[in-house]
Amino acid sequence: TGKGKVRKPHWAVRASEMSKKTFNPIRTIVDSMKVEANPKKPMISLSIGDPTVFGNLPTADEVTQAMKDALESGNYNGYAPSVGYQSCREAVAAYYSCPEAPLETQDVILASGCSQAIEMALAVLANPGQNILVPRPGFSLYKTLALSLGIEVKFYNLLPEKSWEIDLKQLESLVDEKTACLIVNNPSNTCGSVFSKGHLQKILAVASRQCIPILADEIYGDMVFSECKYEPIATLSTNVPILSCSGLAKRWLVPGWRMGWILVHDRRDIFGNEIRDGLVRLSQRILGPCAVVQGALRHILHRTPSEFYHNTLSFLKSNADLCYTALAAVPGLQPVRPAGAMYLMVGIDMEHFPEFENDVEFTEHLISEQSVFCLPATVSGPSCPESNGGALPSWKTAQSSVG
Amino acid sequence: TGKGKVRKPHWAVRASEMSKKTFNPIRTIVDSMKVEANPKKPMISLSIGDPTVFGNLPTADEVTQAMKDALESGNYNGYAPSVGYQSCREAVAAYYSCPEAPLETQDVILASGCSQAIEMALAVLANPGQNILVPRPGFSLYKTLALSLGIEVKFYNLLPEKSWEIDLKQLESLVDEKTACLIVNNPSNTCGSVFSKGHLQKILAVASRQCIPILADEIYGDMVFSECKYEPIATLSTNVPILSCSGLAKRWLVPGWRMGWILVHDRRDIFGNEIRDGLVRLSQRILGPCAVVQGALRHILHRTPSEFYHNTLSFLKSNADLCYTALAAVPGLQPVRPAGAMYLMVGIDMEHFPEFENDVEFTEHLISEQSVFCLPATVSGPSCPESNGGALPSWKTAQSSVG
Ligand SMILES: Cc1ncc(COP(=O)(O)O)c(C=O)c1O
Ligand SMILES: Cc1ncc(COP(=O)(O)O)c(C=O)c1O
Repeated sequence: TGKGKVRKPHWAVRASEMSKKTFNPIRTIVDSMKVEANPKKPMISLSIGDPTVFGNLPTADEVTQAMKDALESGNYNGYAPSVGYQSCREAVAAYYSCPEAPLETQDVILASGCSQAIEMALAVLANPGQNILVPRPGFSLYKTLALSLGIEVKFYNLLPEKSWEIDLKQLESLVDEKTACLIVNNPSNTCGSVFSKGHLQKILAVASRQCIPILADEIYGDMVFSECKYEPIATLSTNVPILSCSGLAKRWLVPGWRMGWILVHDRRDIFGNEIRDGLVRLSQRILGPCAVVQGALRHILHRTPSEFYHNTLSFLKSNADLCYTALAAVPGLQPVRPAGAMYLMVGIDMEHFPEFENDVEFTEHLISEQSVFCLPATVSGPSCPESNGGALPSWKTAQSSVG
Repeated sequence: TGKGKVRKPHWAVRASEMSKKTFNPIRTIVDSMKVEANPKKPMISLSIGDPTVFGNLPTADEVTQAMKDALESGNYNGYAPSVGYQSCREAVAAYYSCPEAPLETQDVILASGCSQAIEMALAVLANPGQNILVPRPGFSLYKTLALSLGIEVKFYNLLPEKSWEIDLKQLESLVDEKTACLIVNNPSNTCGSVFSKGHLQKILAVASRQCIPILADEIYGDMVFSECKYEPIATLSTNVPILSCSGLAKRWLVPGWRMGWILVHDRRDIFGNEIRDGLVRLSQRILGPCAVVQGALRHILHRTPSEFYHNTLSFLKSNADLCYTALAAVPGLQPVRPAGAMYLMVGIDMEHFPEFENDVEFTEHLISEQSVFCLPATVSGPSCPESNGGALPSWKTAQSSVG
């Protein structure tokens, strides 16, 4: 083997195509901004969805205690099965199972954060060359992961004038024979919107008509303000197979713990064993999330008091209202009132701000003048749709950290 | 877009090629064995390298305490940078830096276990269609990850009669213009071998002559018995660029914590910024290891007392000696004395065991008769090389758990 070859060795180590295709637009824009904050004003960083940054949203004592107990037991230092301990998967299944969308232990795959859950879900559903449907504006990781895997991204529009509902016609027009899945993020990162039952049913109708499985990113599940209701999309589906991704990051306020999961909803046996097997295989690449967090998971789900969730939400809601009211009073700004999650999008009528070229410049000046760091909506998808009478472009703010 | 298409939707969800190509031979063989242990004898599981299984190798109190402190501080619940906290990378760099192979903060990338470190290192160095050189017998994850990424695997042979040194001629004969990297695992999973300085220099000479970067899996670094010395391969290299992968799993006895890292050694600037940037990009896919473990890392590296390492090693050594002596006394078995790590390979002279077809059958009967679970060497690479006068095939045992 290999004999007689004519190879003149020289050093030419290049980074792989995959590493070059992998890129995180938030990092890219944030890093290329290179704007100094106003030294006379303290920095207010509203750029990423990390509820722990300001220390005003600590996790529940019961959550920390569960970790302590798991650690002290000494029982969670060894390897767990790569899909997670049976007992943890059972606990997650029991937590989310309901008559409309029953779950069993084998329907749960643990992952290193919701990010890895999404990565595995995409990697099992789509081949290179296929495409996926992704919300715009929306969470940038979908595109990062898809391009990294050689999967094409098609953006469907969310409509600010309809509380960020999906433009269903435009969504359906994007479907072709290479469409591998539809990503639905509800409640939404970037928009702070929460879909109604009726709207979710219409989304499911599209998926059902076009026979496209859904990857539901429900990491903000249950993080909705009192006036509206969160419906897990799987509870409304009779036939569409769904991989629902979630984790501890947001609702339990511990994103650094890197605990996520995939719930497999497949009542018509469309995924069958193949997708499940595929997920198991993919989990064996890096062997699952931290075992200590797994050891704490059951108690985290069971012992976190309901006041904790309640307090987090009223805090987020009062910040959201504060931001909304203040921003709505500014001529040229059109905030869209959030209904959940930790974000707020603001339309900018650029005619009111002739000194700025675009949303990136606007947010740059917000840093240099006011030391307030928001992300321009440009990170949420290339050129956001014309909307709201030309309220374009818009920027978003991580509302959780305000106040 | 998408108008006028003729698409007759029907449900046809298939698992991706990637998920099908991803497969872990240990799991496959272990799962397909389906042999019941002897109910009259307690199970002795020697099949995987998990030092925590039997409770006789607990981690150091200082390690657990460092985690407790990190947890109680409340400072490690949020997102870390995806390559890890600056301070943790600095601590790892300082821990491994030496005059022959200096390291700085930016040379360290944290990962979710050594497994993800290896995954990122492979993903940045090799494109689909390229090949990598992998030890046989050896750790099965290299092949699992490579095939998952569409990278071809070429096996080079380790020679039992030379204490599992590499067959350097055969190694070099495998190199072609598509060879993206050479994996060197020292000390070795499966063989328990430790390469001498001289042998490592010869390996580096091959890499240098052929201009092939090295992926060094040094997760068992420093886990060598007193009579021999562990040399990090980067300390012997003047020009070969090296990605060294390691982590907390083995030496600190906490594989479940999923903390690993890549050390970038590139004194001739052959990797340049490209490989480093590529690693940073790849780390942004799933956002790094558990932040609490990161928070504990500095203290784990600094405060673990040297007696802990010492005690672990003398324990492993006495078990290795015990196994070796007992096995050497059995006619037809040829154990190779380990010099480090947690494994021992045993050649089986099949003529002495005419009742068994092969190593898989041999290990199956070991379970059903003796309730002793070892892995057949078949998992360590397809058809191990003819060696030791036909001592083929061989099986391995996780020696750590013996006694
Ligand atoms: C919509 C959405 N999905 C997934 C994630 C990632 O979650 P995790 O930190 O668990 O990986 C985020 C984090 O901001 C998010 O906003
Ligand atoms: C040689 C080798 N490399 C890497 C690993 C994986 O290490 P981790 O558990 O940190 O992912 C192992 C685990 O057994 C191993 O034996």
